[in-house]
Amino acid sequence: MLRIVICAAAMLGSVLAQEPRGHVSIVLLGATGDLAKKYLWQGLFQLYLDEAGNGHSFSFHGAALTRPEQGQLLMAQALEKLSCPLDVLPERCAQLKGQFLQLSRYRQLRTAEDYVTLSKDIEARLQQEGLQESGRIFYFSVPAFAYADIAQKINSSCRPGPGAWLRVVLEKPFGHDRRSAQELSKELGTFFREEEMYRVDHYLGKQAVAQILPFRDRNWKALDRLWNRHHVDRVEIVMKETVDAEGRTSFYEEYGVIRDVIQNHLTEILTYVAMELPRNFSDPEELLRCKLRTFRALRSLEKGSAVLGQYQAYNGQVQKELQKPAGYVSLTPTFAGVLLQIDNLRWEGVPFILMSGKALDERVGYVRVVFKNRAYCTQSESHRDSGKSQCQPRQIIFYIGHGTLGSPAVLVSRNLFKPSLPPGSWQEIQEMPTLHLFGQQLADFHAYRPRQERDAYSVLISHIFHRRKDFFITTENLLASWDVWTPLLDSIAQEVPRQYPGGASNEYLLDFEQEGSQVVFVQRQVEQLVSGPGPGAGPMPRDFSVLQAKFRQSPLVSAWPEELIARLASDIEVAAERAVKRSGEFHLALSGGSSPVALFQRLATRHYSFPWGHTHLWLVDERCVPLTDPESNFQGLHVHLLQHIRVPYCNIHPMPVHLHRRLCVEEDQGAELYAKEISALVTNSSFDLVLLGVGTDGHTASLFPHSPSGLEGEKLVVFTESPAKPHQRMSLSLPLINRAKKVAVLVMGKRKRDITLQVSRVGHEPKKWPISGVLPASGQLVWYMDYDAFLG
Amino acid sequence: MLRIVICAAAMLGSVLAQEPRGHVSIVLLGATGDLAKKYLWQGLFQLYLDEAGNGHSFSFHGAALTRPEQGQLLMAQALEKLSCPLDVLPERCAQLKGQFLQLSRYRQLRTAEDYVTLSKDIEARLQQEGLQESGRIFYFSVPAFAYADIAQKINSSCRPGPGAWLRVVLEKPFGHDRRSAQELSKELGTFFREEEMYRVDHYLGKQAVAQILPFRDRNWKALDRLWNRHHVDRVEIVMKETVDAEGRTSFYEEYGVIRDVIQNHLTEILTYVAMELPRNFSDPEELLRCKLRTFRALRSLEKGSAVLGQYQAYNGQVQKELQKPAGYVSLTPTFAGVLLQIDNLRWEGVPFILMSGKALDERVGYVRVVFKNRAYCTQSESHRDSGKSQCQPRQIIFYIGHGTLGSPAVLVSRNLFKPSLPPGSWQEIQEMPTLHLFGQQLADFHAYRPRQERDAYSVLISHIFHRRKDFFITTENLLASWDVWTPLLDSIAQEVPRQYPGGASNEYLLDFEQEGSQVVFVQRQVEQLVSGPGPGAGPMPRDFSVLQAKFRQSPLVSAWPEELIARLASDIEVAAERAVKRSGEFHLALSGGSSPVALFQRLATRHYSFPWGHTHLWLVDERCVPLTDPESNFQGLHVHLLQHIRVPYCNIHPMPVHLHRRLCVEEDQGAELYAKEISALVTNSSFDLVLLGVGTDGHTASLFPHSPSGLEGEKLVVFTESPAKPHQRMSLSLPLINRAKKVAVLVMGKRKRDITLQVSRVGHEPKKWPISGVLPASGQLVWYMDYDAFLG
Repeated sequence: MLRIVICAAAMLGSVLAQEPRGHVSIVLLGATGDLAKKYLWQGLFQLYLDEAGNGHSFSFHGAALTRPEQGQLLMAQALEKLSCPLDVLPERCAQLKGQFLQLSRYRQLRTAEDYVTLSKDIEARLQQEGLQESGRIFYFSVPAFAYADIAQKINSSCRPGPGAWLRVVLEKPFGHDRRSAQELSKELGTFFREEEMYRVDHYLGKQAVAQILPFRDRNWKALDRLWNRHHVDRVEIVMKETVDAEGRTSFYEEYGVIRDVIQNHLTEILTYVAMELPRNFSDPEELLRCKLRTFRALRSLEKGSAVLGQYQAYNGQVQKELQKPAGYVSLTPTFAGVLLQIDNLRWEGVPFILMSGKALDERVGYVRVVFKNRAYCTQSESHRDSGKSQCQPRQIIFYIGHGTLGSPAVLVSRNLFKPSLPPGSWQEIQEMPTLHLFGQQLADFHAYRPRQERDAYSVLISHIFHRRKDFFITTENLLASWDVWTPLLDSIAQEVPRQYPGGASNEYLLDFEQEGSQVVFVQRQVEQLVSGPGPGAGPMPRDFSVLQAKFRQSPLVSAWPEELIARLASDIEVAAERAVKRSGEFHLALSGGSSPVALFQRLATRHYSFPWGHTHLWLVDERCVPLTDPESNFQGLHVHLLQHIRVPYCNIHPMPVHLHRRLCVEEDQGAELYAKEISALVTNSSFDLVLLGVGTDGHTASLFPHSPSGLEGEKLVVFTESPAKPHQRMSLSLPLINRAKKVAVLVMGKRKRDITLQVSRVGHEPKKWPISGVLPASGQLVWYMDYDAFLG
Repeated sequence: MLRIVICAAAMLGSVLAQEPRGHVSIVLLGATGDLAKKYLWQGLFQLYLDEAGNGHSFSFHGAALTRPEQGQLLMAQALEKLSCPLDVLPERCAQLKGQFLQLSRYRQLRTAEDYVTLSKDIEARLQQEGLQESGRIFYFSVPAFAYADIAQKINSSCRPGPGAWLRVVLEKPFGHDRRSAQELSKELGTFFREEEMYRVDHYLGKQAVAQILPFRDRNWKALDRLWNRHHVDRVEIVMKETVDAEGRTSFYEEYGVIRDVIQNHLTEILTYVAMELPRNFSDPEELLRCKLRTFRALRSLEKGSAVLGQYQAYNGQVQKELQKPAGYVSLTPTFAGVLLQIDNLRWEGVPFILMSGKALDERVGYVRVVFKNRAYCTQSESHRDSGKSQCQPRQIIFYIGHGTLGSPAVLVSRNLFKPSLPPGSWQEIQEMPTLHLFGQQLADFHAYRPRQERDAYSVLISHIFHRRKDFFITTENLLASWDVWTPLLDSIAQEVPRQYPGGASNEYLLDFEQEGSQVVFVQRQVEQLVSGPGPGAGPMPRDFSVLQAKFRQSPLVSAWPEELIARLASDIEVAAERAVKRSGEFHLALSGGSSPVALFQRLATRHYSFPWGHTHLWLVDERCVPLTDPESNFQGLHVHLLQHIRVPYCNIHPMPVHLHRRLCVEEDQGAELYAKEISALVTNSSFDLVLLGVGTDGHTASLFPHSPSGLEGEKLVVFTESPAKPHQRMSLSLPLINRAKKVAVLVMGKRKRDITLQVSRVGHEPKKWPISGVLPASGQLVWYMDYDAFLG
């Protein structure tokens, strides 16, 4: 079998980069903080246990701003709790802890001199003990605002001598959005080289997460056919918490759930699931390349991509902890469900659901890949064995932790395949066969758990020591992620999150579902417990019916935008059906611009029986830019309509504005060429339907007031000049438009109010108001105006 | 809300066509047969009960070939079993039966005179009793071979007088394939007008089936958004039987399961589910139009569209009942699972699974529409109420009968919507809430059953009387269905069906699953119990690995076709990746013909990370036909590759063989135009990859032996003459091809053996063997040959 993925995988050797033996100084900044107490000291102790026997020597410097006496005391308390692995006898453990304590000391690091002294002390000791220096690790377990200052001091006075390395370890948050992340990165970049920085995302150290790429590689033969849009129904990446933000609101209020866990942990996991497999995923550069390619393929997020919630007690906690006035309303989301879509051939159309929240009903994290069920089981259900039946759910789960299972795990439905996991470090789960998980029993899965659970920080500290940069977030990686999330965060900044009571009482309140490219709460109508600065409660489209009247002696359809577009789309389909029935073809000429976008989208997604196979698409006008330019009308048509439907290639007629590699040059005869094409294909050059808009200056198509061409005469297609950029245009002429069987003019938005009023009063004055010259000789003209344009 | 379907629906009024009151004579041909005894007499009795009170008068003529005395006796036996509706008291029932018997008499109908006599008797009675004749119904419950003869006799001597109507009712089989069905229809058409013929598909009289269209209409508001490919995951249309074909093998051996129930019953149901809703579905013409449109949108069936089975006892039964020799092997399938796909915007990509079989584990019929699950439920499973949760299955089931439910029903998952059914005739099912059905409990459905169960034949006989032609199969309808099924039936005629033991012992043996556009059994390897005339057991592709060697001093890749195509596709992707990395673009020139089709399909469906967005597609050669002609190379490329991937419109470069509405005229300068386009877009006119083939005469591209142009000289693109039709061609020239960075020559099939041998021996003789002139100046040439072409 040939391996066809480009980022093809190789077996991950367990060969770690060999460190030359020598002395390593590790400076833990924030040595008495929560993270240090809970995980980091233990991680450093583990490193010592693992590596000291390999000939390395260590010194551990716990640093903080506190004065030496008090700091020493606090650090001693933290170190008391150190524990050994289960297989170490208590006596030996006490001995090892003693050794570790001997190598560890507290240091106040506040002033520039403190850093100079630290460096001198390290050098003195090296000389004293005749040690060769391998390198220095500075672990920043301090608030981000302190980074720059510390970085500057390390860079200026704490770099090791030549031949030894420097590694600085940074903890999130890495900025608040694209801009702040870039500023921070730039600033750090003035002190450290990229390869010296280790940005920690501790989820990448979790055993189940770290197993995703190796699993995909080891089981490539079975997964190759399955790991794509044809087989994957959806991917869920979930981190649920039961705790709330009490006591941490000063941090949380600035960040919220998306910045806290989704932009980093869950997004990183998404790239592991979705990326093309790198040939060698311990090569950080190749891994990064594959990751970045995945980021680039992510479809832009917008307001509708997320549903947001806030647990009810949150606002009170914020008021209390941050001393806010009684009327203060926080819009910070503590729950979010986000839909991501990946626009590449492998994943197109597969929803990636990222979800996280506080005060939910259980604490659990997992990645769930649900496969489509394409089997038909001929036996009735009562005759099926659920483990074997292809009609049972088929899924692969990377269980990060907690939940009913209580430990990391990898689960593969038995009706998929028997996976391979590294037998030395993973073992099959034999107990709890009837445990219910993801709609199946545990016995219905091939289920594996690590032989030994390891804390993520221990794992990552070891990776830092071994220069496994593939487990850390590079600057490019970080900024790519912020590129994805910043637009969403900006667009939801003023959104009022749905309030939820917390815990199991949330019931179905936070369930959400995909609707097109958006997500919405399944329970649509919920009374807001807090009224926030949401949109004004104006009349909704459904409150009005479509209004029928006359405008300039022609039929007028007026409605709210959604209804109006629905009606226009429907009228176009009726016209198409009639034309195809009559002549086998439907010739439709479309305008560019923003108004028709909603129409294109509606035609693409709601009109299932539209006879596209018999429709010819023409352009009403075009800007003199390459067809692939985002400014091109054709490009807009392509993005919003063409790529979603199946119009035969030869029925698509872009305007030839780009001939002989130049734009709209008279002698290239682009206008004549288009006119000839129309004459040849469209009977009597009479389009079945022409869709027009109106500009605030009264222009239509690209026929502007006082245009020397196109408003009269024999020419079917003309070049014109627009007052706005790009100035050069190609346009159907008014005489050609007026040959059409039907002309629809779509006018939407308040901005059009004045011109609408003006045009309603003038007679036939195409020179002054080109739109007033639209009057099909033997066809029908219909105006479609939304209430904003028509009633103001 | 606007109604946007084209075949828009109107409410079905319950107004049935009013028959002018008068006398109706009903002649039941085959009055003593099984069908008559089981259903038809009862249906006629029901008609009498329903309609006699409305002023109609009736006479019932039971006819058969049997002599009067014996026939009379047999018919009397059949009539004894007639039963009244439950609400009729026994005494009254006896009275009604008595009346019916008085109106019924037996007749031998064998000779032409018998028919003349019948007609005379009817007329005599009419005159005698002073009755006005409404019409005559002839119900053909006889074998199809007798149709023509009877039809001829009715037409020549039994037509009613002026002003009265004739209706003939026909029972399947309606032919054996497209041709025989057409012949039969044509023959019947010489005796009856289309509107006189009522072809019965008794499934259309089943209550749950008859409810499909009214249900879709009544619940249109809820279904409108759901009834399409965005929401429907799959549709299953199933008829399972426990009985086998014993005693009926003389019929069954000629028809098999597809002709017996799938081509007719299940296919008709499919159209009801899939069609656009007619505005008025009791208008038979509109209904037919919508049905035919659905038939036209069905993707062609081929061998791989079905899996076939035969219960083990069948062959023995055939041998016994049909007195076949011991070695006789029947290939008639008694089980089939078929995948149908509908190529329209509403259903594209949604699998329609049609399944039926004998000797299965239960007797049941249903239509199951399974919706995609696009919800994410935030609560853990233990906190969900299955009826409310959006994460439970969402489905709509038209339950035709039997199975665990035991009666017709319509089921809608409670998490979908509460449906509306006609309250007069359907009621909610309250009992059996814990009954397990389709992965849910009955209580999780809104479940309805008919207030009164009615036999399908009673329903249809009433419809015949009321001229409800929408419940019957018109000739067009019939032929459209055969159009779909005949190619499949032809292609599987020699297939050996999988043997199955029957009943619950079938286990997973018959489970099947979709794989691309085909279906396969889930359990792939099963020992054949009977070895039939299957394909010879030659070596399989996997038995050989790819062979690497040299051919004409250039690298040769040789393998079995599947491996070869996989390797070529993979090599093209590698070249594409490299080119895009180097220059941001990949220029690929492709040949037409049949060999590359498999390559195109593989590239379309397996190469998820191919950089199509940066690929330019060029043609190596083109036939001088319009681009939309099926003969056009571009059209082949479009169908097999372009429409499945996303190449930007402007990166697609068909050859301009069709300019100014004419084909390949020198002065239109199509060749120059294409050359200019190449020069403008492709650096140094050097394609990144050119894919060529070889003709049996040694031609490549459209460069034929002794061609006056294209084999040398400056021209990049030339017109040439082919010895085969269409003669005129446009082609890249040999000098242009030889500028490419890589040239791949694909040669497949035994037919190419001779030329391969020849070419292996000749030197550089492009005039004689154009392919021998392929030698990229600074690029690489690679030959891809399958073993048939290379080894013969």
